[in-house]
Amino acid sequence: MRMYDIIMKKRNGAELTAEEIRFFVEGYTKGEIPDYQASALMMAIYFRKMTRRETAALTMAMAHSGDMLDLSAVRGIKVDKHSTGGVGDKTSLALAPMAAACGIPVAKMSGRGLGHTGGTIDKLESFPGFTTALTREQFIENVNRIGIAIMGQTAELAPADKKLYALRDVTATVDNMSLIASSIMSKKLAAGADAIVLDVKTGSGAFMKKETDARALAEEMVQIGRDAGRRTSAVISDMDQPLGYAVGNALEVKEAIAALRGEGPADFMELCDTLGSQMLLAGGRAQSREEARGMLKEAVRTGSALKKLAEFVEAQGGNPAAVYDTELLPKARLVQSVPAPKSGYVNRIACDEVGICSLILGGGRETKESGIDLSVGLVLGKKVGDWVEKGEPLAMIHANDPGRADAARKRFLLACEISETEPVKRPLIRDILS
Amino acid sequence: MRMYDIIMKKRNGAELTAEEIRFFVEGYTKGEIPDYQASALMMAIYFRKMTRRETAALTMAMAHSGDMLDLSAVRGIKVDKHSTGGVGDKTSLALAPMAAACGIPVAKMSGRGLGHTGGTIDKLESFPGFTTALTREQFIENVNRIGIAIMGQTAELAPADKKLYALRDVTATVDNMSLIASSIMSKKLAAGADAIVLDVKTGSGAFMKKETDARALAEEMVQIGRDAGRRTSAVISDMDQPLGYAVGNALEVKEAIAALRGEGPADFMELCDTLGSQMLLAGGRAQSREEARGMLKEAVRTGSALKKLAEFVEAQGGNPAAVYDTELLPKARLVQSVPAPKSGYVNRIACDEVGICSLILGGGRETKESGIDLSVGLVLGKKVGDWVEKGEPLAMIHANDPGRADAARKRFLLACEISETEPVKRPLIRDILS
Repeated sequence: MRMYDIIMKKRNGAELTAEEIRFFVEGYTKGEIPDYQASALMMAIYFRKMTRRETAALTMAMAHSGDMLDLSAVRGIKVDKHSTGGVGDKTSLALAPMAAACGIPVAKMSGRGLGHTGGTIDKLESFPGFTTALTREQFIENVNRIGIAIMGQTAELAPADKKLYALRDVTATVDNMSLIASSIMSKKLAAGADAIVLDVKTGSGAFMKKETDARALAEEMVQIGRDAGRRTSAVISDMDQPLGYAVGNALEVKEAIAALRGEGPADFMELCDTLGSQMLLAGGRAQSREEARGMLKEAVRTGSALKKLAEFVEAQGGNPAAVYDTELLPKARLVQSVPAPKSGYVNRIACDEVGICSLILGGGRETKESGIDLSVGLVLGKKVGDWVEKGEPLAMIHANDPGRADAARKRFLLACEISETEPVKRPLIRDILS
Repeated sequence: MRMYDIIMKKRNGAELTAEEIRFFVEGYTKGEIPDYQASALMMAIYFRKMTRRETAALTMAMAHSGDMLDLSAVRGIKVDKHSTGGVGDKTSLALAPMAAACGIPVAKMSGRGLGHTGGTIDKLESFPGFTTALTREQFIENVNRIGIAIMGQTAELAPADKKLYALRDVTATVDNMSLIASSIMSKKLAAGADAIVLDVKTGSGAFMKKETDARALAEEMVQIGRDAGRRTSAVISDMDQPLGYAVGNALEVKEAIAALRGEGPADFMELCDTLGSQMLLAGGRAQSREEARGMLKEAVRTGSALKKLAEFVEAQGGNPAAVYDTELLPKARLVQSVPAPKSGYVNRIACDEVGICSLILGGGRETKESGIDLSVGLVLGKKVGDWVEKGEPLAMIHANDPGRADAARKRFLLACEISETEPVKRPLIRDILS
């Protein structure tokens, strides 16, 4: 088998076999196939697309290119939740304790990402002392005992995907639906869960700006998951404005805790309930969405979800008191209002721009080496569709540096549109593929 | 300017500017742009094609990526002839002296190619003592004095093309008409001629198997040449069977000498006259094709073309006596007939296969390091459309090794088709673009 022939075959529009795809992925991972042949193949795939069989084969080959986590020592049906990412997306922080409280074991291996805020691990480090440095044994034991554990990424999951994504990123071959889907799913499959619930975001703050693209991606991923024998469903949700009100690390933890007290923003609660229902259904803990929603609401109402968070934080070295007293979380020195320049309806909050405001304040990483400030961020005062009076806060900026606060405020103002007519509200949940 | 944006722009179907193309070619030549980005761009070009302006810009950028030969010290209008290559293509050997005898200065810098026979320089080395190791001054002086000189490739012409072609060759991005055309033309433009006559071959022995492809390539190249301000024309000629009868180095020299005596095969003479006419027109030596053809025939009839060959060979250290006595050229030890297995019309001689027979005999190079046997090859006994009696020679094989002779004979027999019905003869000259 020769890589040249594989490129030619794909270029000419024929379907690659699973053997050919495996040959490419294995050879590329080992460094036997050079980058320049891989990028030519990626560009040919960009133009020719991939069939469902090719996409499944690529995903499986990438999933098997490194370690495949074995979670068989964890009791019960492991359900993994994955979000394509957005601004203010603190869903895992609330959803994991909710699902765990309802009997779904949550066993996550996580890395630290780049972005406008940190990843879930960064956010959790808002609890003083929290660590993900668990041994394999502690990790399994914690999940079995408490229902949740998160460990840092020690195993090498899907190294082929990592290498290929880095190549696609510099050769203008990222935006092909099958390649995006197989990239995400290869890591999910390697991470060992029995079932997968996907949260595919759409809107200005999402990777998929257009809903049709988000839907196409969701469909591809659900298909791949099912072809790989994992129970898979997807929720398509709005990311045209930040989720909830808080954007920033500790600020989002605070909002997640509020949600676990039943005091969270409506859109955030709705998303947790929707995704949670899918998790409970996939994990066999509920028979219908209504039943599942009832269980989740009950876990919040009784405080068992909040308690689960405290147990989890404590088990990983964090101070559980901060779960009950959020004053113990990191706090920024400056809190400044962004007053509305005029009265009217909030017509639009450019979501990606709000993310950049958080970055400016120091809440995210621009490179893997950057430090991160857990205390800073923004808390929206209004959401799209709300009426605002001139001078009322459109948002509160939490900062540690007056210059950065100024820059973020200016940028935030440009991201907001205020109009005289009430905008049409778009639903948070666009669809559920299950 | 970023290479990423250039790939993306092309991938999305937009036209690249001359600046962007130059940025790519210069960066790639210097090694600042990596192979994996170049191959992604080549694949995007494969799918999106290039506009006439893009092709012209790519050609010029590649032509300027190394040395540009300055032939201004050569008097007169320099006309370069280029063939896309084929089996038994000894045209330059006869045409250069014919054109020179008619007043067209021929100043060629040549390399040694890979192929079923050697290149023009290899063939000329059949004249004992012939060398291309001329100084620049000797080279210019010889052209001005005799009308022809060939020197080995000392300057680095179009290094960008060399590097890019090697990359395309392993990434399945060779067969795009604009890329092929710009590859050929970049070298021609760098080689410094004022006018260019292209011989684009079509058929089983040619790079372009289909006539429509040959025509498309010819059109692209003529366009590029004209856009670069060089008088450019193209002849589309048949390569579905070998040109003339002889295939091999010294054997082809012998046939070229026969042509200069007026005793060459009809197809070969016709091609020399056609290409020669284009050269004389381009060089301003004739006003019409009829006039040009008359001049060329006269140069053969009077012996001035043959004399020109002898002068040229002598000026470069070769033995001019061999021009008048071809027994002095290298000769193979074994000359064996390939008898026809049955009587009938020669319906087909698979041209590429005849080339492989020459390679088997040792007449060509498989790698740049291979040696080459100047004496071996094949001389056809019949051409397509001829009647052959059973047992009559389809060809004579000239070999120095009985095993190789056997292998070549077997392969040659498989390459010939004999049928009861007379095949339709296709014209040698398919078209002239001028």
